[in-house]
Order: sequence, then structure tokens, then C-alpha cells
Amino acid sequence: MTPVRAYFPSIFVIVAGCATAPPLEEISESIPAVSTLEAGFDVAVQRKLESEFDSHLNPENLRAWMKHMSSKPHHVGSPWGKQNAEYIAEKFRAWGYETEIEQFDVLLPIPKVRIVEMVEPTKFMAQLREPVLAQDATSSVMEDRLPGYNAFSADGDVTAELVYVNYGIPGDYEELERHGIDVKGKIVIARYGGSWRGIKPKVAHEHGAVGCIIYSDPKDDGYSQGDVYPEGPYRMEHGVQRGSVLDMPLYPGDPLTPGYGATKDAERLDYREAPTIMKIPVLPISYADAQPLLEALRGPVAPAAWRGMLPITYHIGPGPAKVHLKLEFDWNLRTAYNTVGRIAGSEYPDEWVMRGNHHDAWVFGAADPLSGMVSLMEEARAVGELVKSGWRPKRTIIYAGWDAEEPALLGSTEWVEHHKAEISDKMVAYINTDGTGRGFLRVGGSHTLEKFINDVARDVFDPRLGVTLEERARARLAVNGSEDFDREDLRIYALGSGSDYTAYIHHVGIASLNMGFGGESGGGSYHSIFDSFDHYTRFMDPTFEYGVTLSKTTGRATLRLAQADILPFRFTNFADNVRKYVEDLIELAKKKREETEKKNKLIDENAFVLAADPLKTYVPPTKDTPVPEFDFTLLESALARLERSAEAYEAALARFFASGKSLSAEESQQLNAILISTERTMIREEGLPRRSWFKHQIYAPGLYTGYGVKTLPGIREGLEERNWDEVRQYIGVVSEKLDGVADAIDSAVALLSDE
Amino acid sequence: MTPVRAYFPSIFVIVAGCATAPPLEEISESIPAVSTLEAGFDVAVQRKLESEFDSHLNPENLRAWMKHMSSKPHHVGSPWGKQNAEYIAEKFRAWGYETEIEQFDVLLPIPKVRIVEMVEPTKFMAQLREPVLAQDATSSVMEDRLPGYNAFSADGDVTAELVYVNYGIPGDYEELERHGIDVKGKIVIARYGGSWRGIKPKVAHEHGAVGCIIYSDPKDDGYSQGDVYPEGPYRMEHGVQRGSVLDMPLYPGDPLTPGYGATKDAERLDYREAPTIMKIPVLPISYADAQPLLEALRGPVAPAAWRGMLPITYHIGPGPAKVHLKLEFDWNLRTAYNTVGRIAGSEYPDEWVMRGNHHDAWVFGAADPLSGMVSLMEEARAVGELVKSGWRPKRTIIYAGWDAEEPALLGSTEWVEHHKAEISDKMVAYINTDGTGRGFLRVGGSHTLEKFINDVARDVFDPRLGVTLEERARARLAVNGSEDFDREDLRIYALGSGSDYTAYIHHVGIASLNMGFGGESGGGSYHSIFDSFDHYTRFMDPTFEYGVTLSKTTGRATLRLAQADILPFRFTNFADNVRKYVEDLIELAKKKREETEKKNKLIDENAFVLAADPLKTYVPPTKDTPVPEFDFTLLESALARLERSAEAYEAALARFFASGKSLSAEESQQLNAILISTERTMIREEGLPRRSWFKHQIYAPGLYTGYGVKTLPGIREGLEERNWDEVRQYIGVVSEKLDGVADAIDSAVALLSDE
Repeated sequence: MTPVRAYFPSIFVIVAGCATAPPLEEISESIPAVSTLEAGFDVAVQRKLESEFDSHLNPENLRAWMKHMSSKPHHVGSPWGKQNAEYIAEKFRAWGYETEIEQFDVLLPIPKVRIVEMVEPTKFMAQLREPVLAQDATSSVMEDRLPGYNAFSADGDVTAELVYVNYGIPGDYEELERHGIDVKGKIVIARYGGSWRGIKPKVAHEHGAVGCIIYSDPKDDGYSQGDVYPEGPYRMEHGVQRGSVLDMPLYPGDPLTPGYGATKDAERLDYREAPTIMKIPVLPISYADAQPLLEALRGPVAPAAWRGMLPITYHIGPGPAKVHLKLEFDWNLRTAYNTVGRIAGSEYPDEWVMRGNHHDAWVFGAADPLSGMVSLMEEARAVGELVKSGWRPKRTIIYAGWDAEEPALLGSTEWVEHHKAEISDKMVAYINTDGTGRGFLRVGGSHTLEKFINDVARDVFDPRLGVTLEERARARLAVNGSEDFDREDLRIYALGSGSDYTAYIHHVGIASLNMGFGGESGGGSYHSIFDSFDHYTRFMDPTFEYGVTLSKTTGRATLRLAQADILPFRFTNFADNVRKYVEDLIELAKKKREETEKKNKLIDENAFVLAADPLKTYVPPTKDTPVPEFDFTLLESALARLERSAEAYEAALARFFASGKSLSAEESQQLNAILISTERTMIREEGLPRRSWFKHQIYAPGLYTGYGVKTLPGIREGLEERNWDEVRQYIGVVSEKLDGVADAIDSAVALLSDE
Repeated sequence: MTPVRAYFPSIFVIVAGCATAPPLEEISESIPAVSTLEAGFDVAVQRKLESEFDSHLNPENLRAWMKHMSSKPHHVGSPWGKQNAEYIAEKFRAWGYETEIEQFDVLLPIPKVRIVEMVEPTKFMAQLREPVLAQDATSSVMEDRLPGYNAFSADGDVTAELVYVNYGIPGDYEELERHGIDVKGKIVIARYGGSWRGIKPKVAHEHGAVGCIIYSDPKDDGYSQGDVYPEGPYRMEHGVQRGSVLDMPLYPGDPLTPGYGATKDAERLDYREAPTIMKIPVLPISYADAQPLLEALRGPVAPAAWRGMLPITYHIGPGPAKVHLKLEFDWNLRTAYNTVGRIAGSEYPDEWVMRGNHHDAWVFGAADPLSGMVSLMEEARAVGELVKSGWRPKRTIIYAGWDAEEPALLGSTEWVEHHKAEISDKMVAYINTDGTGRGFLRVGGSHTLEKFINDVARDVFDPRLGVTLEERARARLAVNGSEDFDREDLRIYALGSGSDYTAYIHHVGIASLNMGFGGESGGGSYHSIFDSFDHYTRFMDPTFEYGVTLSKTTGRATLRLAQADILPFRFTNFADNVRKYVEDLIELAKKKREETEKKNKLIDENAFVLAADPLKTYVPPTKDTPVPEFDFTLLESALARLERSAEAYEAALARFFASGKSLSAEESQQLNAILISTERTMIREEGLPRRSWFKHQIYAPGLYTGYGVKTLPGIREGLEERNWDEVRQYIGVVSEKLDGVADAIDSAVALLSDE
């Protein structure tokens, strides 16, 4: 543990004591950095506001709302989903928000037929049903319940030999090739994990498979991890992970209205032509249903890294297990109800700070999404209390309860697409939450907000341990041996996809954050019927103390973004993260070059064959094209310039505050407009290669990882997929984007220095 | 793959063409190295001898002998064990060897009572019995069969709560401490693996446990690894791994006669006072018997690295499972029959080259030990054929079939202790084999023989792939990314313990080798009744082609050691390995210092507590004494000197051969005596700290790893166990020993240079 940041005292020295500050020239090299709090506010006023905000928070509200909202299935299109949207709207209104429910009509296929049966060498019919448990009240609620399925699977009726493909990601198919195994015309069975689920059927289809089964291995979230439900929180034998398999790395949201809102009268694609819908049938099953199928496989024993925790020898196949997979869906539109409440800003009504969390679930969704939703609601209520006491935010604050996140981020994506111009014009930042638990604060987001959110985390206390969230997170990094444990600000992770920030950051370039607590509330209820109020209140955050702590954290972030005279965007951390990404890329290119050389040499020398067991089938790999030397100079120069500009902004801010000057309202707005524009500058209208919807050039979800982020994706995916021309092109593109950010920062510096 | 060593052509240039060699001064810097083959022999004569030797080898002999010898249980003291000793003796005699059976009377306790039962929270009686299988002929042979047990367990009758301790090694007890769990008065259950088995009850006893159960988790050699017997080679649910738990890292061999032969009239300790006998009862069980016990445990969920592959959540306990463990042994002496056959050397009868493999098994022992034993027998037979055709070895060759290896290396250890003076005087080298399989040649041993055995491996071909054993092994290193893959000679591993070389190398300082094939014959029959002829011939080396290849390899080694004019000891590889060990040690000291500092700092900052789940019991670690800076200068100087001497010997050899000179018989014997003495020089009569029987200062089995080697053990174990004074003392001891080796090498150089 490092002690509390050394510059905290400076809040008082400089702000309160600027009259006695030494002359500027003497301290120019040593002016202490200005925290995002002291740069933005009258600190005492802001702290008083935040402490008043805190005083309104009550964990019992979270409990009551979660219990109510999770009492029935509430996926998009369900009666209880609509009821929840209205329930949130009613609360928002009662708390003083100007509230509306915005509707979109989006495609959500629901299954009519689901059959998985083994027809050879023995007969077995998969149960495909989660049981009623006495210890779980809602497990007996059957009405409106969605069965276990993968949304946006194709219809299909196929019978074929089965092949076990591990996680079903590209590297697994390379391993299959070494064994001489082809999945063409076969049904593959993959375990959850190793990638976002939608990658599995996509890659299976690319390799010619005709069907895909995904199961939850007990190694990943079942008995291997801990006691299973209801004794413990982990996935019991019949628990099924539902989930979307829409090809969201291409574009999320309604597959029929790419890039524009799915309003009632919008023009729509035929679902049979929508490029993001899977081309083969795919279904998730439980490990109780998977075990007989896997046990019936023969062929090579699966490599060590492929083996799960079922009490069997994992074989690859193909066959002799032969499986019949039949799936039929209705292909209906459903109405998504987004609840949106606002309080208009008193000074900058056209600068919007937005918070969002989805309210739809796969079934009862206590953890996912309601744990985050009720935390957002309590935050909104407490802000409402501030307003009732006469306070008004300077900027407009918007709270959203999104519908239809689960199938494909439909509610938020359609809303963003529909309001794109206005959002691009007005949105300062978007702060997302989703399911949350107990443990450590986890933050992902735009690195221009990294310093800001660290400052927030230094002001909120862990409810159990009496230290700040930042100190606890830092202690864990230190104990785990992270090299970043003593970095001035803790790193936040870069955003890939997986929740409603996606359209904001990747499509429009809105600086975004995603937050939640975790690390001490593991379990295996995810997307099963057992993600219930009973499960949550026994195993996740029984007292809702971390839920309320999340409200404190996101509430502070919201209030500070709404109130700041100078918005808390900072660029040294951004530049430092980009440096890391650039260094990673240069290292990746070097490693790939060396690995290719080594592999090709081993092939020339027949080493793979000599090292393989002569009694087993082994197909050696073929040679790869050599990896050229890339010229990263342009990128390195742009980065160096970015670093200088970022440092200059810090120095300019510090000098500005040390000088005791202040900005006029107009200057302040001008500066903030520049700051807001920086994330927009990272957008390129043409988008990324082969997916124009994704426009951010610093972050993107991976084409072959799904939720997993790829930083500097144009270059990185070019390298990973061996598109050398793309690498060269995107070195140029990214360099230009970094130059654009530096330009913006430079004009902010100029503005501050003119004062 | 690197191509065949470049100096092979030199065999012909220098030996056959020395008349035209350039003048010495011109080539002094570029004289090619001399291989161990060309330095030792008339190469053409030796190659002819070896090719004649090969021509006598027949895999069908291995099959017939294995079938016969594995048909009944043949542990020490069993009728069939004695029969096998006599069978080998009869063969040796028939093949022309002067043969005797040397007897020792050694302690081997055999169980009279074995009970493992769970008494709470439910009743369960462990079966402790391996089943009869139709596919395995000897599984129905019950007469004389040893049940599943750990030899040299204590008698005991204890009932106590159970605690799961993972592998039961010291680090696991640190983890238990973090959970606030004490094993005092408890019975521990540990899984096989992570250390030699005898470490588990020893460490359990040190922590106050009253009993120890060891089981075979399916993760380690059961269904997780592959199909179980009889479908595949892996351990089936009732398979039990027998094995010794005598505290062999203290001293192996008969516990009642430490340091001297267990002859009929030898003075003996009372078994109740023998320091190497375990102090608590310990019993191995199958995973079918272990599962109910483990499943009944509660308490914390075991850390991820502790979890095996049973379909349960692994908990640590203690309890509520309470277990009754009752064991009673007879404590009888048994007669060990060592079969020893010799052919006296024609020129140097008092220089002995010895080969050995044990013949006793836990039960039927087809793989362990007969696969190696029959390979040794075929080698002995082929050498016998050479002798019958009129050839005589220059040195005496001795073949041994050891008894009583399994319980504690009893046969070989007593033989070595009994003949210690003569062995120390006459033994050139000892070459051990034990169970062998299919795949890659694996060699461990004294690094003064590393170059030699590489030269042998460059002359023997893999029976399947048509490349040399060295090329195959190198291909595997290359594919696995080993940094040593292009080293001129492949590294051999350093010897710890686990087979009959132990007394030779560690007690007397005889240069030793240990060899076998493996890597493609994995399985889980080890020390169970299913280590049978049926199992071996289905899954291990069905054609015995690798068994015969082992005969070719060890046979060449034996013949070259027996014939060499200049013995093939070389020192540059030895020095290179010692350099690696020294660098490892310096790195270890540094790492330990840094880790201690880091840990103490984290404790000061309360980071462990802050990083732990506040809802779980967590006991933070306490501070360690800082690790001082050690002065390694002495060791580094000794190493540098050793390297110079080793290089000088290579140069002297090369010059000598280039000069066309030759040694007189007397000079040759003088040189060889020096070479033989080098390994003896590594011995220190006082032995290692707390275990005087182990005298080698470069290698030893680890006090807390068992079979696993510790290099430069005096220093290394001092560091590991935080005995700083010992570290300082042994830096001096080892430096002196290295100086001694350098002295010997220098006198060899002088002798060659005088010529």
C-alpha cells in the first residue's frame, strides 16, 4: 500500500493559500499537479453537496426495488419488462425528473422448438430445463419465462457427428487441424469461456460446422469454483447460461436497422438477410445435459488445456456420438421501453451528463441487471432530494433504464442511433453500470477520465474496511504483484463491449465509464433462472452496502461532471495508456515476426513431425508468410507530441490555478467544448476495417474476442489477422487521430495561457 | 533441429589422417574438439563391435522374460521375487557371467490391518481393494499379493477430523495458516503429486497431524489424463499407488543399518528408534475411496490450484468429516536377493563399469521395474554373445538385478554400503535403468558424462522415425521452445533420488547415469496391480522396440566405458551446468531478498488484510527476517577456475590427438585414475547439513522434495530454509570442492601435455 496521494494537501495550499504562493517563474517546474476536484470546483461547496447526497442513500430501497422488479421474468417484450419500465418512470417522476418512455420495435426471436438429442451410439434426450428449488422463490414462476437459448441463432434441423472444440475460438481450430480433424458438416460442442459466446458459432460456421452447442463446464462456473446452488452461489448441474449470439462485433443493436433507430416506421432488412444473425443453429445447455454427449465422444484425448471438470476423459471426436439439433424461432418484433428521466442544467442545459443501466433481464435478473439498476435509481432519488432542497445541477443530468440490453444492446443502441446528432453535440460523458456485486471497485472507460475517476475513488470508502476504494484496489494490486500498484492513478481498463456504453463510445465517441463492484461475489447464476433475489441476497451483496457504495461512486462522478467549471478531462493518463498500447503493438509485431520465423524453420527441419508421437495422427502446420518490418515512426512521433501536449495542459492548469486567475463563463464553456471534443476526435467516420459502425480508433471490441477489447484495433487486428496492408494504413490513421487529440489539447492550453 | 554435429567428419580427418595434420602452432586456436568416441578408441573397431552387439538384440526376448517374471507378485521377500532373482542368475550364468546372488536381511513391514472409515457425518468404509478385470490376466492372481499401503508408515489407530492439505508440502501449510486452519490432532488427506510421497506424512507430522491419507486424484493420472484402464492406460477408480514413505532424504536403504550392509549378523537399530520410519500412520487410497471423504468436508473452498478433477467442490475442512484410520504392520526382516554377474576385464580388471536395474516390484511390476530389467538382460545377453565370439572387455563389466528397490532402495544401498571401499576404489561409473516406455530418451546423471552420453545418443536411431535419439530429443526441445535446443550437447538432468543410482552417486561419489524412454507412454498403472504384462503390451511399448533401443543405448555406454583408452569424462559441460546452478542460486538469493522485503512492506501497510474478503476468515502472514547479502565471490572464482581447467583439458586432448602421439599403458591408466577421481572429489565425508549419509556437494535429493534434485544443496537448502549461516558455510565448502575438481583436471592436463 502506498499512502494517500501526496498532493491532497495541495488542495488547501493552493486553493486556500494562493495569496502566498511563490512567484510563477520560481515554481514553474515544481508547481504541484491540480486534482480534478480542485481544478473543477469550489472544493468545499462540492464536498458539502456530496456529503448531503450521501445522507439520502438507503440500502433498504435497493432491496425493496430489486425484490419487486425481479419477481417475474422481465425480458424485452414481456409484460413485467414493460411494467418495470413504467415502475422506473413513475419513480423518476416522483423524484422530480422530466421522464418519458421511448419505444423502439426491435427483433427478438423466441424459440418455438428446442431439441437436442443424441441418436448414436446411444439415445439421450437433453432435458433443457432448470428445476424448481424450494430455496429459491422465483424458480417456480413459469409464466412468461424464456427458456435456455441463444438469441439470434438460426433456425435449423440438423443431425451430424459431434466434435468437441474446446472454447471454439480460432486457435482451437488450429489444434484440431494438427489432429487432422475437420468440422465440416459436423455439429460442434464448445464450452463457455475463452471469448464472448457469439464468437463460437461464428467461427464454427466459418469452418463449415452445421450446428453449435455451447455448455457451461463446471470448471468455469460450476462445482469446481465453489458450492453449487442452492448450497452455494455456483451453477448447479441444470443451470443454463442464456445469451445473445448476434454478431455484435460487426454492429450491435437491432439487426434489421443498422445505424439508425428502430422506430415504428423505420425501414427494415428482412431478417434472413441481416448480416449479424448467425447462420447455423446454436443452443446453450447445462452440464448435466452435456455430460452424456461428451462422454460418448472418442477420437483423440483433448489436450490438457481443453479439459473441463466433468468426471470423464474429454475426447475430441468426431463421433461416434451423433446428435440431432432442432431449433425453430418466431422472428417477431418486440417493443423495447427505454425509461429516460432528466433534470435540466441551470447553466449549461445543452451539456448532458448521462447515467444508464439496463432493466431487462434474461429471466429474473436480480444481479444482471437489477443490482446496478437499483443502485442507479437510488442515486437518481438522492439527486432528486438535492433538487427538492433547492439545488440545481449546472449541466443537464439524464438517467436511463434501458430495455433489451440482453439480446444485443438494443435499447441503448437504438436510442443512441436515433438521437445521434444531438448526443454528439451535447453529451459530455456517459456513465454506465450493469450487474454489480461485492468486493473491489472495477472501472473501465475512456482514459481521458482516468485521473477523474481515481479522484472519485479516493473520496469513497469501502463499507467494510474503512479505507477508500482506491486504497483497497491498490492493496490488491500490490498483493497480486501488479507492476502498476504504485502508479499515481490506478489504471482503468479499456472498453470493449458487453453493456450499454457500446454505442456511446464506439459509435459516437462519447467519453464513457463503466463501473461496478466485484471480486468477492463470484457465482454461477449468470443468465440462468437462478439469478434471483434469493440468490443475490444470500450470496452477492446481502446488505446492499456495496450497492449503495456504487451509488456514492457513480453519484459523485455524475455530480462532479455536472458541476465542474473546468471539466475533469485529463490527458497525461490517456497518453500513458496509449504509449502502453503502442509498445504492446511494436512488441506484438516483433514477437509475431520471430514466431513466424521460428515456426517456418521448425517446419523446414521437420521438427514438428519428429517431436510428435508416431503412433498418433499428426498433421504438421504449414508455413506462414513472413511478417514484414513495419515503420512505426509516424505513430511514435504522434504519441510523443500527444505526451508533450498532455504535459503542457497539466502545466497550464497548474499555472492557471497558481496565478489565482479565473475564467469567464464564455471562456469556460469554450474550454469545456474543447475538452468534450477530444473523444469525438478519436472517431473516424469510415469506421474500422470490415465494420464501419465501430468508429473509435483507440478502442474496439475484438472481431474474434467479442466483448474483449482490442486497443488501437485497426493496427492490432491487422497484425493478428496478418493483413499487413491494413497495419500500414492504420498506423497512419491512428497517428492522425492522435494528432487531432493533440491539436485539441494545444488549443485548450492556448486558451488557458491567454488568460 | 540442428543438423548432425559438424565435428563428425573429424573422426576420419584426425584419426585416420593424422600424418597430414598441419603443424601444431598453426592450429592451436582452431583444433577441432575431439568427441568422446574419437578420444577413446580406434573408432572403426569400436563401431564394428557395437554393430555386432546390435545384431544380437531381439525384442522377443524382452517380451518372453517380462511375461514370465511379471506373472506373480514379486516384492522383496516373496517366493516369486526370489525365483526372479534366481531366474536372472541362471540367465547370467548361461550368458557367460560369473554370477552370485548376494543376500541382505532388510526390514520391510507388511500390513496386518488396514482400515479407513468415515464415522461422521455419515458412515463410509473404504474398499481398499483393486478389482479383477477380465482384460487383465494377472488381476486375478491373489496369492502373495501386497495390498495398497505405504511402506514404513507407523502403526496407529486414530480417529479425528479430516483436513484436505492439497499436496501436503510446506507451502500448502502456509496457505492453511492464511485460512486460520491448524492440522494439530487432525488426520490430513493429501493428493499424490507435487513432491515425493514420503514428504507428505513427514510434513503432516511436523505440523501435528496424527494420521495421513494419500490418494490419487484423477487429475494427476486418472480420467483427466486419458481413458482409464482397461479401456486406456490411466488409473481406474480403484487403482492405488503403493509406495515407500521412508524418510529417504535422510538416508535410504535399510532403516536399521544406516551406513553399513544389512548382513545377517549386522548390528541393528530397534525399528521403533529408526529415524527414517514415519511417526504417524499413512495409507494410500484410490479416488473411489477418497471421493466420499472429500465430499463430506466443509470449511473454506480449496484454492484454485488445490482442486483436483473429482466432480465435487473441494473444501479444506476441518471436518465435519471425521475419519478412523487404523494400521498395523508386522515388522519383519525379509531377505533381499541381489543378482550380480561379472565379466572380468582383460586389461583393467580393477576398473569396474556397472549396470543395474531392480527386479522387485510392488505387485506384478511389468513396467516398473521389468521393462528396464529385461532391457538390461538383453544387453547382458548380447555382450555375452560378443564374449562367446572371443571378444573380452578391457574393463570389468558388472550387471546387477537389484532386489528391494521399491521399499527404500534397499538392495542396491546395502550392496553399496557393504562394498563401499572396493567400489570407491574401482568403480568407473554406474549406469542405472528402471521402468522404461516409449518416446524420447531421457538421461540424468553426472555432468562429467554429459558429452559422452550425447555422443552415444547421436549414434542410436529412434526405431520409428529414422533419426537419432539426439535429433528427436532436440526436435522436441525446439518445438517446446526450450532455450537449450541448440546447445552443442543436450543437457542431462541432475540426479535427485528415486532409483538405485542413489547410493552410488550420493554416498560414494560414483559418476552415474540414469536412462529410459518416455513421453509417449503415459498412464496410471504406477505401483498398482494394473502395472501388468497386459497393460504394458497394450499401452506402453507393445513391440518392445523402444526396450531394445534402450539396450542399444545403455549397451553402447557400457561398451565404450569398458573399452575407452581415455575414459570419456569431460568437464566443460560440467562447468557449464555448475555455472547455471550458481547463477540460479544468486538469482534465488536476490529474489528471496526482494520477496521478503516486499512481503514485509505489504504487512506493514496492512495490504494483505485490505486485499482479503472481509466476510471470510483471513490470517495475514507475519514478517520474515530480512535476507542478508551473501558474498558469492569465492564460488564465482572457483567456478571461473573450473571453467579454465575444463577448457584446458579440451585443448590438451585436441592437441594431443592432433600431434599423433599416444599414451603408454601406464600413462593411460594414470590419466584414467585422475578422470575417475573427479566425481569422488565432489564428496565431503561430513555430508550435508542434518544428513551425513548424503555426501555429494553438487547434487542431492531435496529434504522437502524427496526425489526432486537440489543442486549445490548445501547452499540452496540453506537459502530455502533461511539458514543464513549454512549458506555462508557451504559457499566455502562448494568452492573448495570445485577447486578439488579443477586440481584433478589440471593434473590430467599436465599429464597429457607432458607427452
